[in-house]
Amino acid sequence: MSDENQDSLEPENQELLQDLSEQGKTAELVEMFEELPTMDVAEFMEEKPIEEVIDYLRKLDLEDQGRIFTDFSQAIQIKLFHALDRRTFAKIFGQMYSDIRADLYQELTKEEQIELLPYLDKQVREDVIILSAYPPETAGGIMTTDFATIFADMTAAEALAKIRTDAPSKDMIYYIYVVDHSMVMKGLVTLKDLVMHDPKDKVLEMLNEFFVYAEVNEDRESVAQKIGKYDLVAIPVLNSLNQLVGIVSHEEAIDIIRAEQAEDFEKFGGIMTTPNDDEYLQTSSFHHFKKRVVWLVSLAAIGIISGMIINAYQSVLETFIILAMYMPMMAATGGNTGSQAATVVIRSLSLGEIQDHDWPKIVYKEAKISLMLSLSVALLTYFKIAFLSFHSVLPAGFTMGYVAFTISLAIAIQVVSSAVIGAGLPLIVRRMGGDPAVVASPAISTIVDITGLLIYFTVASLALGIS
Amino acid sequence: MSDENQDSLEPENQELLQDLSEQGKTAELVEMFEELPTMDVAEFMEEKPIEEVIDYLRKLDLEDQGRIFTDFSQAIQIKLFHALDRRTFAKIFGQMYSDIRADLYQELTKEEQIELLPYLDKQVREDVIILSAYPPETAGGIMTTDFATIFADMTAAEALAKIRTDAPSKDMIYYIYVVDHSMVMKGLVTLKDLVMHDPKDKVLEMLNEFFVYAEVNEDRESVAQKIGKYDLVAIPVLNSLNQLVGIVSHEEAIDIIRAEQAEDFEKFGGIMTTPNDDEYLQTSSFHHFKKRVVWLVSLAAIGIISGMIINAYQSVLETFIILAMYMPMMAATGGNTGSQAATVVIRSLSLGEIQDHDWPKIVYKEAKISLMLSLSVALLTYFKIAFLSFHSVLPAGFTMGYVAFTISLAIAIQVVSSAVIGAGLPLIVRRMGGDPAVVASPAISTIVDITGLLIYFTVASLALGIS
Repeated sequence: MSDENQDSLEPENQELLQDLSEQGKTAELVEMFEELPTMDVAEFMEEKPIEEVIDYLRKLDLEDQGRIFTDFSQAIQIKLFHALDRRTFAKIFGQMYSDIRADLYQELTKEEQIELLPYLDKQVREDVIILSAYPPETAGGIMTTDFATIFADMTAAEALAKIRTDAPSKDMIYYIYVVDHSMVMKGLVTLKDLVMHDPKDKVLEMLNEFFVYAEVNEDRESVAQKIGKYDLVAIPVLNSLNQLVGIVSHEEAIDIIRAEQAEDFEKFGGIMTTPNDDEYLQTSSFHHFKKRVVWLVSLAAIGIISGMIINAYQSVLETFIILAMYMPMMAATGGNTGSQAATVVIRSLSLGEIQDHDWPKIVYKEAKISLMLSLSVALLTYFKIAFLSFHSVLPAGFTMGYVAFTISLAIAIQVVSSAVIGAGLPLIVRRMGGDPAVVASPAISTIVDITGLLIYFTVASLALGIS
Repeated sequence: MSDENQDSLEPENQELLQDLSEQGKTAELVEMFEELPTMDVAEFMEEKPIEEVIDYLRKLDLEDQGRIFTDFSQAIQIKLFHALDRRTFAKIFGQMYSDIRADLYQELTKEEQIELLPYLDKQVREDVIILSAYPPETAGGIMTTDFATIFADMTAAEALAKIRTDAPSKDMIYYIYVVDHSMVMKGLVTLKDLVMHDPKDKVLEMLNEFFVYAEVNEDRESVAQKIGKYDLVAIPVLNSLNQLVGIVSHEEAIDIIRAEQAEDFEKFGGIMTTPNDDEYLQTSSFHHFKKRVVWLVSLAAIGIISGMIINAYQSVLETFIILAMYMPMMAATGGNTGSQAATVVIRSLSLGEIQDHDWPKIVYKEAKISLMLSLSVALLTYFKIAFLSFHSVLPAGFTMGYVAFTISLAIAIQVVSSAVIGAGLPLIVRRMGGDPAVVASPAISTIVDITGLLIYFTVASLALGIS
């Protein structure tokens, strides 16, 4: 029971394999490959030269080869595709989990696909081609065909016998799908149901007819949400004829939720995303550049408006030099308040805590919160000016207290308006059917920069009687 | 097979229940309560007055009551605690899933807990007290005690018989845990293993001895990561004596990953988070205020430095009025570049795509990306100044082209330095053992505001020969 290390979740397994490998205990090493969690074995092998990986795989039976190969990163899978002869590769490929297999197939070039197909079993070939046909962001694009089916008129004992025959190749048999002879789904039973019932009971008696399912064209995010909401181990995927065409398992849901949230995070940070982005270091600098440049240049172009406002109020700034001194703080505070409000609203929308029809409540709440925030910031500003800027030169007839009050008032108005803009924009985008996360934090900063300067100079002009 | 509606995942189930309820078909309604997914039934009931909910629950058997009650929101659970007499409530409470039950128990006041305890079965009472003892952010705080155990010397048939006796009360029996008589965990078998093997085979023969487990004090995020990495339906939780004390299931992992990512998102937006934050509308405005005010006021205080820099370079601004015009754009562009870089780095760290020891590669990559970005922004700035500001007044001896070049150069340097700061700060925080997401976007904006103004005025002073 050693302490966990942050980098590797089960470092003792890696150490065990490393030790056996260094001591040349190949028989024990191969035994561990069969015993240890597949992911640990895959991680260990990935660090080795490709020839060594092939040697290791050769020593394992075909099922273990397929299991470990499935857990390799796609880069290693493709390396092995090139290193192995087509026939050997086709055998391992036939043992892979069907969803990962279809993903790999789609990464091969058209020529490589055509080269590989003749070596595949008819069933594998059909499976790969069908799964590759669905768009990657749909239920069809992420489903596997590794599921077990039974018929409603079987007894529990007959059903278990059918599963024993069919299931060695199926990864997920905790839910057993009940279909008719045209594969139309009638319901499901759990393996628990079958085991707990009298062997002579009919499947029909334990059938769950009101099951949650996904449609084959349904968005993958909605599929993941259903799995999470209904706490499913897997969700069946039906086509328009109600035929069972695949399942999506809970593992996939975790990956999707992670990916979708990461995507929201990037969008909000002003990064454009695409569904199949590579990892950070694998992505070329030019591709990173393209994902950022549009927002950055657009906002820089809009940002020039701020400069024009300052230009227009030049005379005010020249009379009251102190205004220039607190201008950047005002712009930054507005941007920060707006980003905070937008962050909270986008987070709450994505967790389903609020709906877009709640907008009057949300805007009212943000107004209340920001009133308190504005009081805090305004007090800071007032005391800062009154106590630290007393040596500043003011035109005759103005007291430092009055100027401090004016600037603090402007900042207070800016804080409230920024919070309302920051909270309101994601709600408007959502209401128009868009993804609220596209209202990026940089965009909000830029917008409230402009509104903030207008507020600042309007308040200053009115209160100080200049223009 | 109706179209899905964005708001409710299975609207047809809600409609079905609503129709039966409006037509007063109570018998059919109760039948549907038993058949439909629990979450849909819970959602339907939550919309009804509390007396009606109690009426509905009374018509169901105790197991269904516990199942539906478990899926209610905590607010409704507490309402029912107050509306029901202690004895009736204790019965439903005894049927709840143990992790949700412990969460509810901890929400009751000390007096309410003491009132409830005498009505509970000894086993439920102990379970609740033990589960409530673990901190909520650890494996112990999120685990359930609903697991099935067998002994290694049993045959598959004997094991299945024991599960049949024990398991009606257990939710998760897809993994069966093999323990000795002191509950020390020896390994696990899957229900699939038991069903697929010959009934006379010994459990020992199919035992997985190298299993992934969590320690009872382990951080919940690490537990969720293990479930995701090893694609587990559930992970066993062991204490320091290697005794099996609970399991954490994949449903919990989805919730944790969602919560942790939402927390990162908030932190990055400059919001302080606590593990047990309520939903947006349920949280008081004052609590929201407290979560935001520290960052906001601190950054506003730091932001005054920007004002002091502008003040110091007042004479430069007076000579070159055009510098003031492009100052806000420069500050905003720096903030945006820094936020983009930080977003990408934090996202990649949290997905495990990069490690903190990759920092030289990451900083180098960000430098390359930002060089391209700086060229784009600088070109925009140059042409903007050269073509649109030609009427600006310049001191004798300076051409607009040279001034435009100077400003563009300053902005280019600002973009590169902001990207490096934005990417570097999260890496430094991670290296010091902190959460990179605390390097909030507002903080980065404020920092690069200051560095940006220094760059701007230094470049301008040198190039234009003034100070």
